[in-house]
Amino acid sequence: MAKEKQFVKEITPQSEDFSRWYLDVIKKADLMSYSPVRGCIVFKPDSYEIWENIQRELDRRFKETGHRNAYFPLFIPESYFQKEKEHVEGFNPELPWVTEAGGEKLEERLAIRPTSETMICQMYSEWIQSYRDLPMLINQWANVVRWEKRTMPFLRTSEFLWQEGHTAHEDEADARRETMQMLGIYKDFVENFLAIPVIVGQKTPSEKFAGAVDTYSIEAMMKDGKALQAGTSHYMGTNFAKAFEIKYLDRENVLQYAHTTSWGVTTRLIGALIMVHGDDRGLALPPKIAPTQAIMIPIGPPKSRDLVVGRVRELEEVLKQAGIRVRVDDDPNQSPGWKFNEYELRGIPVRIELGPRDMENGQAVLVSRITGEKRIVAQERLAEEVRQLLDETQTLMLERAKQFRDEHFGSVDDLKEMQELMENKRAFALAGWCGSDACEAQVREETGATSRNIPFEPAERKTHCCVCHEPAKHTVVYGRAY
Amino acid sequence: MAKEKQFVKEITPQSEDFSRWYLDVIKKADLMSYSPVRGCIVFKPDSYEIWENIQRELDRRFKETGHRNAYFPLFIPESYFQKEKEHVEGFNPELPWVTEAGGEKLEERLAIRPTSETMICQMYSEWIQSYRDLPMLINQWANVVRWEKRTMPFLRTSEFLWQEGHTAHEDEADARRETMQMLGIYKDFVENFLAIPVIVGQKTPSEKFAGAVDTYSIEAMMKDGKALQAGTSHYMGTNFAKAFEIKYLDRENVLQYAHTTSWGVTTRLIGALIMVHGDDRGLALPPKIAPTQAIMIPIGPPKSRDLVVGRVRELEEVLKQAGIRVRVDDDPNQSPGWKFNEYELRGIPVRIELGPRDMENGQAVLVSRITGEKRIVAQERLAEEVRQLLDETQTLMLERAKQFRDEHFGSVDDLKEMQELMENKRAFALAGWCGSDACEAQVREETGATSRNIPFEPAERKTHCCVCHEPAKHTVVYGRAY
Repeated sequence: MAKEKQFVKEITPQSEDFSRWYLDVIKKADLMSYSPVRGCIVFKPDSYEIWENIQRELDRRFKETGHRNAYFPLFIPESYFQKEKEHVEGFNPELPWVTEAGGEKLEERLAIRPTSETMICQMYSEWIQSYRDLPMLINQWANVVRWEKRTMPFLRTSEFLWQEGHTAHEDEADARRETMQMLGIYKDFVENFLAIPVIVGQKTPSEKFAGAVDTYSIEAMMKDGKALQAGTSHYMGTNFAKAFEIKYLDRENVLQYAHTTSWGVTTRLIGALIMVHGDDRGLALPPKIAPTQAIMIPIGPPKSRDLVVGRVRELEEVLKQAGIRVRVDDDPNQSPGWKFNEYELRGIPVRIELGPRDMENGQAVLVSRITGEKRIVAQERLAEEVRQLLDETQTLMLERAKQFRDEHFGSVDDLKEMQELMENKRAFALAGWCGSDACEAQVREETGATSRNIPFEPAERKTHCCVCHEPAKHTVVYGRAY
Repeated sequence: MAKEKQFVKEITPQSEDFSRWYLDVIKKADLMSYSPVRGCIVFKPDSYEIWENIQRELDRRFKETGHRNAYFPLFIPESYFQKEKEHVEGFNPELPWVTEAGGEKLEERLAIRPTSETMICQMYSEWIQSYRDLPMLINQWANVVRWEKRTMPFLRTSEFLWQEGHTAHEDEADARRETMQMLGIYKDFVENFLAIPVIVGQKTPSEKFAGAVDTYSIEAMMKDGKALQAGTSHYMGTNFAKAFEIKYLDRENVLQYAHTTSWGVTTRLIGALIMVHGDDRGLALPPKIAPTQAIMIPIGPPKSRDLVVGRVRELEEVLKQAGIRVRVDDDPNQSPGWKFNEYELRGIPVRIELGPRDMENGQAVLVSRITGEKRIVAQERLAEEVRQLLDETQTLMLERAKQFRDEHFGSVDDLKEMQELMENKRAFALAGWCGSDACEAQVREETGATSRNIPFEPAERKTHCCVCHEPAKHTVVYGRAY
């Protein structure tokens, strides 16, 4: 293999070619490498650290709501997939198969898990005997594989990282409560931590998880107006319980099927962060998720260098004590200008500059990544001022993303309007739907948009189906999707 | 599949059948389930939480020493294994192969990683250009697969979890410093956190990692006198750099091969914890690693129950505030006796009992899992007293394990002595070694013991090879091993 010689010189503007922009940013911000295996990327430290932050925050929320982690095998026997009919149809085309191991051909092929539904349900059938064992609330952090035809870094890769919660309950009410609780945790996390506003709702039958009774999702809008499904939560009813014989003795000593759920988010959230917040200068990370929240850069001539760097190191310690994730770049071989550019590109929310004149005045300069605003602040109040700017930035990023989405949202009454919206405005469409698969399919064929979900809180209730114009059963959000 | 009906009634005594004891304890403490895939187990929440604690602590130490995490693909193209000759010979027999994916036969077979050496080295060859890129210090937390013929839960499973550090350096000195630093971190962690004393030393050439120049290990003794390799650190020299073309321009602008290292520990540490500290009453976890450090059990008649439980809940909060991982079991359907037994079995270091009389006297009873000692303490000093008992327990567990190991350690001068030691005393042997592969092999054939390592600090320097009686080049620790 040749050395990776091709460095990106400039970032393609978003307005010129959004996909090109996305790949340029990822490359320049050093987030990933393509691997020699088709569709599998390497998560380099700067993207993996974002994932670690996502993991830490979600894991805390999962544990606070009574879930525990466990780990299930990577390999799933072929026969397991056959047990739930919709499930096998949904996943079969995407499975990689291990057929040989330890120098021998295997008697039964083993799939690499695309999800652990079947394996975990098999285990639950062994672990669950009585209502006392319920609810069973387990989550797994793992790698999964879906052999994708078309891939895109972070958004769609053959191997990706995710968490999958799998729970079993006594009855429908309890399982549905769980499904909604986890959907709520996702919404709260993605909006308030990743600063990505989401539309919460239910998937139409054609878009639900293979084997689920109901699938719920949170849907986010990227800066090209396309949709990204950012998290899902499924109520499985007793479908998997029946396929895998998950039965328990209830309080009246009667054997019952358990009701199960599952829910997950993946490393595609990293892609969402890039596409929602990035701009033509590169990445922009919300403070709460940013591995480095503030970068300190000493400036000025060599003669004052030691003095300035000394003070910067002192202030670094002060910021760390205040719980701010700060780093210093005092590399004398790079100019401040080069560094400003570099850390803007890498999306660090706040830059702190300190030069000889700032030393004299007991000041420092804060620069916001997203607004470019400069603030001259007193060094003795540095931690408070940085904290303040980080908090403002977090709030502002969510507001801006909300505003962008609201501006790229149309309400349409017929297919022609939807077509125009999709072609000209890169937008989501709110439209009525009669409930038939045929009308939903026609929207896809004629506009390229798919139903994202049936929002719980639509801005408006549509009265007629945008295709057949019969009375609408639901108001649906449509969009072209990643 | 039939329901898992076979419950363990009693734990087989260690003295009767150690392997049986091990499996009984694992089963009763609810640590794992066998999966339908040969040699792959399910890590149930109680064992996975131990792994999470191991991860958190090690990860902190890795980051403090400048390492960052990343994630590399699960699949490794067959051609990569061919690049380093010893490496392919070492791992080929254990590889599972993906030959089909997405409904098509693959052009090149993909191995499931047994270690990511080759993939990471390939990436390093692309990432490293100059001495400025070095050292490159990356760690990965991942699942790996080695298709084992004989498996044993936690100790040897076809799929297991681990971390693998992979670093690249300018020269031998820096790479060797890294190799030793990480070995030191493992020793410190395993001794002071897991309370397992280890022998630190260098592997003999026949036992080193496939492709390494030198392999170092920490070796622990289980309660049956057998050895468990608890962690390894390898200096690779330029072997992998040459195979994968990891070259950099040095400070004089000359192209050089990098020197690489790798180091890892696995989920077998969970097995080590069980086998070093467990006893005939079940699991015993060192406080620092125990998911639950103290279990509180309210006792006494129903009429005083609410009062006692109320106070227990207050004290639980006090302990949590003090940073103690405490749980309460106030299930009215189980007797205190049943609970005492259950939590001893699960290895919780400290039990806290509180009954009506304790309420009157403002006291509580602490019971140590490992000594059975009871302490009556004032409720107002509960946090300090529990902390004290936990600290004492941590220290005592390491001391006891050290004492056991020292009592099961012989110094031998010939094969006959070693045979007797291995047969009768379930022990490690310190013996001289001339340095020849033949003598080492003869030890294995005639005694079943393998060289564990050449300890840095042997209790004694042996002068003659225990096989050929020529002058000893090294003093070696031998033992039968897992």
